[in-house]
Amino acid sequence: MALYVHKYGGTSVGSVDRIRHVADNIEKARKRGEGIVVVVSAMSGETNRLVALAHEIQTRPAPRELDVLLATGEQITIALLCMALQEKGIPACSYTGGQVKIVTDRAHTKARILNIDTDRVLSDLGRGKVVVVAGFQGITEDGDITTLGRGGSDTTAVALAAALKADECLIYTDVDGVYTTDPRVEPRARRLDRITFEEMLEMASLGSKVLQIRSVEFAGKYNVPLRVLSSFKEGCGTLIFCEEKNVEKPLISGIAFNRDEAKLTILGVPDRPGIAYKLLGPVADANIEVDMIVQNIGEDATTDFTFTVHRNDYAKALDILQSTCVELGAREVAGDDKIVKVSLVGVGMRSHAGIASRMFEALAKEGINIQMISTSEIKISVVLNEKYLELAVRSLHEAFNLERTVEAA
Amino acid sequence: MALYVHKYGGTSVGSVDRIRHVADNIEKARKRGEGIVVVVSAMSGETNRLVALAHEIQTRPAPRELDVLLATGEQITIALLCMALQEKGIPACSYTGGQVKIVTDRAHTKARILNIDTDRVLSDLGRGKVVVVAGFQGITEDGDITTLGRGGSDTTAVALAAALKADECLIYTDVDGVYTTDPRVEPRARRLDRITFEEMLEMASLGSKVLQIRSVEFAGKYNVPLRVLSSFKEGCGTLIFCEEKNVEKPLISGIAFNRDEAKLTILGVPDRPGIAYKLLGPVADANIEVDMIVQNIGEDATTDFTFTVHRNDYAKALDILQSTCVELGAREVAGDDKIVKVSLVGVGMRSHAGIASRMFEALAKEGINIQMISTSEIKISVVLNEKYLELAVRSLHEAFNLERTVEAA
Repeated sequence: MALYVHKYGGTSVGSVDRIRHVADNIEKARKRGEGIVVVVSAMSGETNRLVALAHEIQTRPAPRELDVLLATGEQITIALLCMALQEKGIPACSYTGGQVKIVTDRAHTKARILNIDTDRVLSDLGRGKVVVVAGFQGITEDGDITTLGRGGSDTTAVALAAALKADECLIYTDVDGVYTTDPRVEPRARRLDRITFEEMLEMASLGSKVLQIRSVEFAGKYNVPLRVLSSFKEGCGTLIFCEEKNVEKPLISGIAFNRDEAKLTILGVPDRPGIAYKLLGPVADANIEVDMIVQNIGEDATTDFTFTVHRNDYAKALDILQSTCVELGAREVAGDDKIVKVSLVGVGMRSHAGIASRMFEALAKEGINIQMISTSEIKISVVLNEKYLELAVRSLHEAFNLERTVEAA
Repeated sequence: MALYVHKYGGTSVGSVDRIRHVADNIEKARKRGEGIVVVVSAMSGETNRLVALAHEIQTRPAPRELDVLLATGEQITIALLCMALQEKGIPACSYTGGQVKIVTDRAHTKARILNIDTDRVLSDLGRGKVVVVAGFQGITEDGDITTLGRGGSDTTAVALAAALKADECLIYTDVDGVYTTDPRVEPRARRLDRITFEEMLEMASLGSKVLQIRSVEFAGKYNVPLRVLSSFKEGCGTLIFCEEKNVEKPLISGIAFNRDEAKLTILGVPDRPGIAYKLLGPVADANIEVDMIVQNIGEDATTDFTFTVHRNDYAKALDILQSTCVELGAREVAGDDKIVKVSLVGVGMRSHAGIASRMFEALAKEGINIQMISTSEIKISVVLNEKYLELAVRSLHEAFNLERTVEAA
């Protein structure tokens, strides 16, 4: 029997009516003869309600107790969904993370899954039941309740799919798939039928917030085919799969972008070994995440060093850099928090030269100045003045024919 | 070290402020050097909210899933209370019913406790922690979540106190103890310092709804001293204890009453063996609970048979009795739903004659007609027209000097 793991997020189970709708969806899949395990999040709003209660009591709620508190959110949903299924005559059984034995480490509020005991789930499936599991939560070897952090329900679904060797893990959400770029910026953006794990990771980390990075990594590692699709609209969504050899691949899958960037440059740093560490060490110590890093050789045995951070961290990073500048005897510090990052992503570019120059050509034609460039095997990112974002995305979308499906040779 | 189990009901933990107040109370007890295990209910309103959600989905929610749903209520409270304690610098650790291993049978929504594993609680107490346990819930041997039914948190507290051999189980509630009678009827009603388990059972079942009968039975069985006290007002409350020999006992502890009674009489029933069963069988089959039963011998080998039921069941019981009347060839059926029951309770009456006549004398003086009488070893109940309720309670309260403490010789 084909086995599918469904995952429904907070919006998809946000009211009794929506929970009933999810039950309808599961009924259809069951009629196709599929074995189904369902992972659900807390009803939208519930987690925020609980966090607010905790913060009324403690500014920094005790992590162990916060997990006990938050885990109730998904527990409510599993019970209500099972009731909705049983009301339709579908046998169903709910499990908390602890009951299904999703064993995690002890890192409360951001635990990692170590092991899943599938006995009870498999036995229920064998008896024709739909198994409904609380996402986002697990249990330590000692029996303490843990949660997996943001997007944890996606991770639960993928981990369960891997442990059960499911045919596919279906992530139901409020979008109907992964697009070539954000349709709000480029109306001709096209839903992708397929995308590789690697491409999805680049798209996700660059701002196309459809899936949590961690769950995509997890799915890639265990080779669990993931499908993103809408719980409100019919359609087959986007399949995220493991790249195979000799399969026709699109040259470019999509264009990701990130508006919340800021860049900092330190100019005229004496060029000595260890300079990058001396510059970025204090930034990292202040818990500021650094994204792109570019180093140019300057004049007179000095170097210019530029990196980007989240816009919220800009002021703090600038302060740190000013002191570092004095310490290292660098010339000056410059910065700009009106920038964006635009990235072209596609596994096809691996085997094709000239993608970068085509990208730069398209931007040049529109008179867009490129401030920074950074490349990986399947991605080219450029930093631009924020006023160019929409123009850049649309011209690249057209230059690479993304409104049509184009396969690389 | 003295060990106390505290239990706080839904009203006592009904808001973040009240939870903080409970933490203050626990802090005081800790300063007295007491080891403390706390049992809490769901915040007031939370259980009703969850039940309403379930009923939106199923008219008769699946019991297993209803338990999964309702158990979240207490889980929220344990986490919040632990945060409030930790905020005050008091080490505390929360446990769900399942985590503490309160093992129950499989009777979902009304499970019975079979066993409690005290290892983890004792180990935490040994390390100076306050242990906070979710009331009302348990777990089956298979790991399914169960709930104990109405008043289940009291039961959890008493069961934990018994398993831990605690010195006392303190039930914090919104009243400051058990009174000689309802102070709204007799303003001179006096809070009792002590009352025996047996008396408390008679008082509770007769309408003084301070404690759940089941938890009192449980406490009596395992000889756990219970204390009822207010979580909002200082005071030592009422101790409910196991009667010992040769201890001075009050003659009468209190006057209980019940307004929701109705009585039914079948007159002129041919007096044959098995007549009581034939009359009450159909009533019990209709799930109507019968309270007092009185049978008088009538004329000509017939008998008159009277019983009381809850006022809500009056019409239904009357219908049933009409058919039974025809079947058995009885003369007629009569009924009255404007009656009340008033009861005098006290272990002291066991060894003292003349209590009943003193009671009847007091009522006669006020011109109150007694319609039915029923007695047990420590209780005398009379059925009266409802208009006499207040007058009867006050005159008995005075006749037995209940506004003062009176010990039996």
